[in-house]
Parts: sequence; C-alpha cells; structure tokens
Amino acid sequence: MKTIGFAAESAHSPLQPYEYDCRPLREDDVAIEILYSGVCHSDLHTVNNDWGWTVFPTVPGHEIVGRVVEVGSQVSRYKVGDQVAVGCMVDSCQSCSQCHSGEEQFCEAGFTQTYNSVDRHTQAITKGGFAKHIVVRQEFVLSIPKSLDLAKAAPLLCAGITTYSPLRTWNVGPGSQVAIIGMGGLGHMAIKLAVAMGAHVTVISRSQDKQGDALDLGANDFLLSSEPESMELSANRFDLILDTVPVKHDITPYLPLLKVDGTLTLVGQVGPIAEVNTVPMVMGRRRIAASLIGGIAQTQEMLDFCAKMNILPEVEMIKMEEINQAFERLERADVRYRFVIDMQASSF
Amino acid sequence: MKTIGFAAESAHSPLQPYEYDCRPLREDDVAIEILYSGVCHSDLHTVNNDWGWTVFPTVPGHEIVGRVVEVGSQVSRYKVGDQVAVGCMVDSCQSCSQCHSGEEQFCEAGFTQTYNSVDRHTQAITKGGFAKHIVVRQEFVLSIPKSLDLAKAAPLLCAGITTYSPLRTWNVGPGSQVAIIGMGGLGHMAIKLAVAMGAHVTVISRSQDKQGDALDLGANDFLLSSEPESMELSANRFDLILDTVPVKHDITPYLPLLKVDGTLTLVGQVGPIAEVNTVPMVMGRRRIAASLIGGIAQTQEMLDFCAKMNILPEVEMIKMEEINQAFERLERADVRYRFVIDMQASSF
Repeated sequence: MKTIGFAAESAHSPLQPYEYDCRPLREDDVAIEILYSGVCHSDLHTVNNDWGWTVFPTVPGHEIVGRVVEVGSQVSRYKVGDQVAVGCMVDSCQSCSQCHSGEEQFCEAGFTQTYNSVDRHTQAITKGGFAKHIVVRQEFVLSIPKSLDLAKAAPLLCAGITTYSPLRTWNVGPGSQVAIIGMGGLGHMAIKLAVAMGAHVTVISRSQDKQGDALDLGANDFLLSSEPESMELSANRFDLILDTVPVKHDITPYLPLLKVDGTLTLVGQVGPIAEVNTVPMVMGRRRIAASLIGGIAQTQEMLDFCAKMNILPEVEMIKMEEINQAFERLERADVRYRFVIDMQASSF
Repeated sequence: MKTIGFAAESAHSPLQPYEYDCRPLREDDVAIEILYSGVCHSDLHTVNNDWGWTVFPTVPGHEIVGRVVEVGSQVSRYKVGDQVAVGCMVDSCQSCSQCHSGEEQFCEAGFTQTYNSVDRHTQAITKGGFAKHIVVRQEFVLSIPKSLDLAKAAPLLCAGITTYSPLRTWNVGPGSQVAIIGMGGLGHMAIKLAVAMGAHVTVISRSQDKQGDALDLGANDFLLSSEPESMELSANRFDLILDTVPVKHDITPYLPLLKVDGTLTLVGQVGPIAEVNTVPMVMGRRRIAASLIGGIAQTQEMLDFCAKMNILPEVEMIKMEEINQAFERLERADVRYRFVIDMQASSF
C-alpha cells in the first residue's frame, strides 16, 4: 500500500512530504487510515537525533487515531470501519514472561517501536503516525470507545498511558495523596487521571503562574516549590509524586514531601538526573522509581477509563504542513498541552 | 548511678576514660551493666564529627548487650539478671502514627538516638555503649534469647537490623534472588540473613579476592562487577539488591541487574550518591530505595530469628582500651567483620 507521510531526511532538517510503501498485509495485520496524530516530545528528540539512534529518513508519530481500511485474513479483533488507535509499540516477541503478563513494553527481546525501529519480520525501519496510513498487527491495535472524541484522543496513546500506568502501579485511588511535578503534555494528563481515580492531587511548580491552570485542570491544591516554608509544611504528605519534567533536574528537594514508604516516579527524564542525597530516603524508606508507557491491555483499560470518566487531553489542532512551526513551539514549551495533527484537514 | 565510659573530647581526638552519671531511674527505666559493645562505622563518623552534629564529649556505641542490674517501679518487661540489648534508639514520642505502627525509627517527632542525642526528658546528651552502664526505658530494651552467644550478639543491634529490615520490607524468602554489594559489617550480615530466609544470594564485588569469603559466609554465587560480560549475563536477574557500600558511589551499573519492578536498596551511604541515569529504571520500572534500621518489634523479631536460625556475626573481640587502634583499622576496612568490645576483659 502506497502512502505519504512527513519525514525528516537528516538531524534538525525540516519535515517534508515523503512517499513510501506500507508493507503488504500479513494475515494478522490491520491497515489503518490515520485521522489524527499527536505530537510528542519524543518525536522532536528523534528528528533531532538527540538519542543518537535515529535512522533517516524518519517518519515520527506514536499517538495515532484512525479507521480500519483493510484487514488480513486471520484478523478477528477488528473490521473495516472500526475506530482504532496505535501507541508507541507495534510488535513484541509475544513469547517471553513479560509479554505473557501483558507488559509488552518490557518484552525481553525488546518491543518494536512504532517508528525508527527494525520490523522483526521485514527488517525495514518502522514509520509512524505523521502519515496517511499505517499497517500494524492486530495485537497492537487498540479500540477507541465510541464516546471518546476522536480528534482529542490521540495524546492518550503516549501521554495518557505514560501517566496512567504508574498511577495504577502505585495503587492510586480514593484517599491517595498524589503530587504532580511538571505541567506539560504528561503532567496535565496526570492531573486529570489522578483526580478521576479519586486521589487528592497537588501540582508542584516553581512558578506561581501555573496555579490557575493547575486548578482549572482539576488539581485540588498547588504547592510552590520555590517557597521553603510551604515545602516544609508539606513534608511527609504524599503517597506518590509523579515527576514529568523531561530534562535533567534535582529531585532531592521533593523527597522529604513523601510519606514513609512513598515513591517519586520519574516519567519525563530519560537520562541523567542530578546527584541525589540519600538522607531523606533513609529517613523514611522513601523510593525513587521510573516508569515507561504501559502494556497493551492496560492501554485499552486506560482508553476505556477515559471514555467512562470523560477524560480527554487539552489539545491544539494543527495541519501536517504546520509541523515544523509546531516543533519550534514545542521546543519552547509553548503549547497547551498537546498538538494534534488533523490529517484530513491537511494538504499533502 | 555513677559510671565510666570511653569518650572523645573533640573531633579526631583519641577516646579515653570518662566518668559520668547515668540518670536516676525513672519508673519505666532499666539499668543495664554493659557486657559487650559492637563498634559501628557511625561511631567513628560521630567521633570525627563527619556529619557536623557531634556534641563533645561523646561516648559512642549503639550495639549494646548486657545484664539488667536495676529496674524502675513500673517496669514489667524485665527483671534483674535478664540478658538484654539496646540498639540505635533509646526513646521516641510513642504517640505518632509511626510509633503506633511499630516504626519508631521514623517517629514523626524524631527518635532519641542512643548517643549524641538530646534526652527528651532531661535534655542531657545521651551516652552510648562504650561504657560500663546505660539506663534505658523498657520499651527500647530488647530481650536476648538464651541460645544466642552473648559475646557475638552485639552487632545484630545495628548491622543486623539494618540488613534484616529491608530483607523483610521487600519480602525476601524462598525463591528470591538477592544480591549484596559490599562485604563489611552490614554486608556480611546481609548474606547470612538472606540465606537464612531461603533466598538465593549473590555477592557483587569489584575484587575477585572477595569470592572465597563470600562463599564461606554462605553466599550461593559471586558476581565480579569489573567484568562487563558477567554483568551483562546477570541482567534482569535480581529481585532485590542490597547496597551496603558506605561511601559515595555510582549505582547506575547495578540497575540493569534488577528484574522488572526490582529494587536496589541503599543501607550504607548516608549522603550523596553519584548521578543516576534513569534509562535502566525506565526500561524495567526499577526502583531505588533506602532503609534505616527497623522498629523495636522488628528488632526483637530479628534477634529471635537469629537465635532460631543460629545466625551470628563474625567478630573480633577487643578490649575497651584498644578502641583507638580499632578505629584506625576500621578506617582502612581492616576487620572481619565487626569489632566487639568485651567490657569485662577491659581495664578501665
């Protein structure tokens, strides 16, 4: 199947139209016409080759919402016309203990990423959601509940599951005291999801300016981290701190805010964090963890939860041809809170 | 009650005999004649004022074994002649949620340390186990099971509980894969305790020289951390890594050795650790934690467990007057694995 996407030809080069073939459908494959595609910071990191592993030309995008246009002979889960989604994974070994326990993101053989990954069958480099079509095996296709607004749903596939999964891992529910650091694509979803799970949610920020938005998004409280007295008054307060800050930073000042046995979970920064002082960890058996998206079953659970609780990201709709300006704005964190590309409104 | 101990008059000065009064017995107090006192690295840190909070003169020692010589009018738990022990704590508020749940080490008002702490009633500075006597309220006195060798039991009160507690917190038992980093006072106890709990225990060391001792202490396996190939083969292997290294060091190389959801728990270093890279944490929801001794009830449980399983530290007996040479050797980690002062064999 011929399709067209937007690709970067080399590091830092602008994305432009790029024609390529999707693989011929295997018996368990689903061909999807992409309707909406979210723009994640990882897309920008990949285009800039920040992690050093980009294979060019690269077609990014792993927050994909669309409609089934063709299915392989053995596909049982989906039929033509179904509203579906694809997130960060398109394949895994399906035979290791992690895959068997529904944690394909920790597949012992490594999962196949939606883009910039080697297809385990064809050895071709996978191409993502900044395109008209994608072909994915049915096990990695999600179903979009009818009540979810398709135009806004895309960011759930990465920002949504990345924050939903740790909230579930650390048993957030009614009575939980949860804090969120960072209020971007991930952080704003974390607020909505934790509130919907019944937690008492506090946004922690260095800037008083964020308070209004935090409360508008549903947070119950706001804590100014630049104010030592407020920080001291919040000692021993939180069961879980979800840290969505995507750059190297110092987490030690947040550790005393945790209760005994509380956990600070990193979901933003992939790389070094500043030197940690163990004193507040020792003096409360406090923990630092990190988390990565979630398995396919949990991603479906998250979509169903969002449909039931009427949770959607805040998005700014753009056209495909506006992606390079959107990347520039993303670089300056100038977006509330996620760009979504409307493929049908785009001209390419 | 008049007593005599060994005290440092100022930072880095040698310990020498020092006479002082133990407080008059309150109704819930137990007076103890100290028979044996373990030598912990914290004693040396305190004498050297490494943490900046030492009040001189200081009488260190928080691994105390002795015999009850007098009890207050309301003491119900102990009688004259009982074999007892005192660890790192001698008091706490007894009314906060942590104290109520048996975790006095996390007392919200701060527990009273056995030495170099302000007595919450008299405001005097507490004095520890490098002495002939100590007076402690009964709630912080432990019972030494008859079958435990008194001369060797003292190090259980700090090195023992510091390693026992995290093994219990992280549910170590038959089938657990546990690794121990560092084979000093804490590390050698961790090996014995984890083996007794039924775990498969691996010692991780930079030096091949440690292999013989590790296996002699009961470890099932040995992993040379300076050999990249062995480290790679041990990826995803351990449920828990207990890191007993008492200085600033880099833990990132150990993180990939943990299974998904595995934890590396720091019990040695109190202070900064080197910059951590989150990649191996993200790619397996791995966790870093720290732990501090254990509550009184758990300390008694540990003593009973050691008696039942016939577990004792490896010790080198010294006399009180040999403490300054012992500190010098401790500084060079030249001890297998804990010095214990025999008070009755000492001349002071």
